[in-house]
Amino acid sequence: MLVSFFDAYESILKSNIKKLGSERIIFSNALNRILSENIYAKEDVPACALSSMDGYAFCFKDLEKLKTTGLKILGSNPAGNIPSALPEGCALKVFTGSMIPKGSDTILIIEDAHVEDNLLRLKDDAKIPNCYQWIRQRGDNYQKGDLLLSKGSKITPFEIALLAELNQVFIQVYQRPRIGVLVSGDELVEVGEIKDNIAKVRSSNPHLLSAMIEYMGATAIIKENVRDEFNKDCPSRLESSFLELLDECDIILTTGGMSKGDFDFTQEVIKRYATTIFHGVNIKPGKPALFAISKVSNKPILGLPGNPNATGVVFFLFSKAILANLTDQKIYPKKLLAKLTSKLSKTDSRLEFRACNISINNGIYEINQDTKKANTSAIINNLCQNTALAILPDGINEFYPGDMLEIILLYSEG
Amino acid sequence: MLVSFFDAYESILKSNIKKLGSERIIFSNALNRILSENIYAKEDVPACALSSMDGYAFCFKDLEKLKTTGLKILGSNPAGNIPSALPEGCALKVFTGSMIPKGSDTILIIEDAHVEDNLLRLKDDAKIPNCYQWIRQRGDNYQKGDLLLSKGSKITPFEIALLAELNQVFIQVYQRPRIGVLVSGDELVEVGEIKDNIAKVRSSNPHLLSAMIEYMGATAIIKENVRDEFNKDCPSRLESSFLELLDECDIILTTGGMSKGDFDFTQEVIKRYATTIFHGVNIKPGKPALFAISKVSNKPILGLPGNPNATGVVFFLFSKAILANLTDQKIYPKKLLAKLTSKLSKTDSRLEFRACNISINNGIYEINQDTKKANTSAIINNLCQNTALAILPDGINEFYPGDMLEIILLYSEG
Repeated sequence: MLVSFFDAYESILKSNIKKLGSERIIFSNALNRILSENIYAKEDVPACALSSMDGYAFCFKDLEKLKTTGLKILGSNPAGNIPSALPEGCALKVFTGSMIPKGSDTILIIEDAHVEDNLLRLKDDAKIPNCYQWIRQRGDNYQKGDLLLSKGSKITPFEIALLAELNQVFIQVYQRPRIGVLVSGDELVEVGEIKDNIAKVRSSNPHLLSAMIEYMGATAIIKENVRDEFNKDCPSRLESSFLELLDECDIILTTGGMSKGDFDFTQEVIKRYATTIFHGVNIKPGKPALFAISKVSNKPILGLPGNPNATGVVFFLFSKAILANLTDQKIYPKKLLAKLTSKLSKTDSRLEFRACNISINNGIYEINQDTKKANTSAIINNLCQNTALAILPDGINEFYPGDMLEIILLYSEG
Repeated sequence: MLVSFFDAYESILKSNIKKLGSERIIFSNALNRILSENIYAKEDVPACALSSMDGYAFCFKDLEKLKTTGLKILGSNPAGNIPSALPEGCALKVFTGSMIPKGSDTILIIEDAHVEDNLLRLKDDAKIPNCYQWIRQRGDNYQKGDLLLSKGSKITPFEIALLAELNQVFIQVYQRPRIGVLVSGDELVEVGEIKDNIAKVRSSNPHLLSAMIEYMGATAIIKENVRDEFNKDCPSRLESSFLELLDECDIILTTGGMSKGDFDFTQEVIKRYATTIFHGVNIKPGKPALFAISKVSNKPILGLPGNPNATGVVFFLFSKAILANLTDQKIYPKKLLAKLTSKLSKTDSRLEFRACNISINNGIYEINQDTKKANTSAIINNLCQNTALAILPDGINEFYPGDMLEIILLYSEG
């Protein structure tokens, strides 16, 4: 019995699996890590009123004097220095980031200043500032105790800059997941090896998964090309590799051995040591996908199809659910609308994740499969070069130019 | 005279700067690198006709026999093995990825097979396959000589999988750019240092730029907190740091020292050694941004404002143009439409990149600035936690719920 994609995803999100531990790291090493604590402001920033422009600090109640007799300039205050209080009728030259003196509350920007005989006046075409203009008040960025970053946030370069500003040298983040990959298939030949016959297939899944895991910021541990030999009575090499990964890793992936062939032993090993949550999902590609939880250690096990395109799509989608669960979050695939630009059909009623070319036209995503090969789950090249997954719903088989379809972005950036 | 954002961007894209060299690396180390060569298929993949399902290979002209007397099963062919030719009236068990024998052209999937006394027949409710169904033909993925990856492509995990399948162990990619950062400002105090007075500001720009550069896959070389002291006659520390970076790096960034203050010496140093392409852009934040090309070595120099939010936004936007130019590409910011969900106004007529919260609702991007602080270019926290930049056009100052605005995604993922 096949489960729906939604039910499969939800069952991963809700499953009772062993969570990731946390660790203390230096903020500048935290790019792409996930916070396991909330971060609060330890002080007001800025700590005092600062000028946000180059210009002259003065008191707004001296505006009439500024317009007429002028204000006496008492020198200048470089950024980083504490100035003396400003007497009535005076002004102080300041720079972007300079502390403004007590007794001042407004900045006349340098472009609007007319200075003669050390007296500050308005230029003829000056824009008169409002009271408090061009001043960053104490605590404008944030105040002591404000929640600035929430548990579960991903650390981007902007979060790193904020942590620096906060003087938050150490932070608690979730540990990098260790993801074990068990690759099986007698037909596989490694990169660089000679293919001794044309029936052999060049192995790409370990490299695909290794790179996807690296992209996630996780650590990959690959046990490769374990032969399809399994003996129900004594542990085979496949079984012992599986058990090693189960011991060492936070997530275990298997590729191949998930469908109905006589040599698909992987699923037998999984069933011996784990409780199956689902086996078979009503999607294309990815129908043979399996999710299980190990009996003793409660570790998540994701059984992936053997074909590279299917492996990539299923891992991309379901790894988000596993990682969300491991880090105590609820994260769903981000579905966006895109306009189809040429006809597209499907032969199978299943929900399908179809590899499409993606571009942006007038602010709208546009997709088509014009340069893609007729889809099969083995064609990894279909996922290369600016590809998104179009979600073709269950039961609808024809899609026309102009249709708005849901898509999932793959490895894109802003 | 301020240039427009478009003109500034275009002038970077078109400028005559020293391009990045290329280097030869192993495919599995290539994540996020940019190809400097085209990649072509060296052979047909698959190399022979393979089954795409578990089932039985037979010849379609034996269909009547399959329906009636049945086909004699001549054993099974595991994946990776070359089978003998199939005589008329016979079938061979195959698995996903198995080579199919000469004399066969169609697969009966295992779910539709009825096997009794070593004879293959159709199950009662079987779906009769079409001729050639469930077979991947030689060259279905790609044929020898096909262009698979173009020069300028970014290597994602899918490209790595394809390179593995191609047995393309080495590839030519652009070298990682070395990006030098010259940070100035007397008011700055480093992370971990004691602030000796409240006028000091915690330094975040070097950490911000370092992380943004790491995110780009480039190498950062930081010369930090060079004092604002400059002597027109003899080289100061600022000047010698600048010259060191000019010598060592492919791109030079400076932060601070770009506006009109007496202490803004950085621009004087730049003007001494480089030709200014623009200084001053009609955008907010980022008005003081500068772009120059060094006189002797033709290296790009980007002068960034001193405030962290402005630095982050300007570097995010213009670094794409510099990197595109360095790698012989034309890349423009990806502008997407988003629906504004609450009122937003601006006080300055300039084109503005406003930090907004972003989410997805029914496939549509939605933005608002509900949790953002009143914008100033110093507030780095405004860029944290799922933020996109809304592009508020020049001359329009009020935006209402339901308006569709152009946005630029920052560090988001699929």
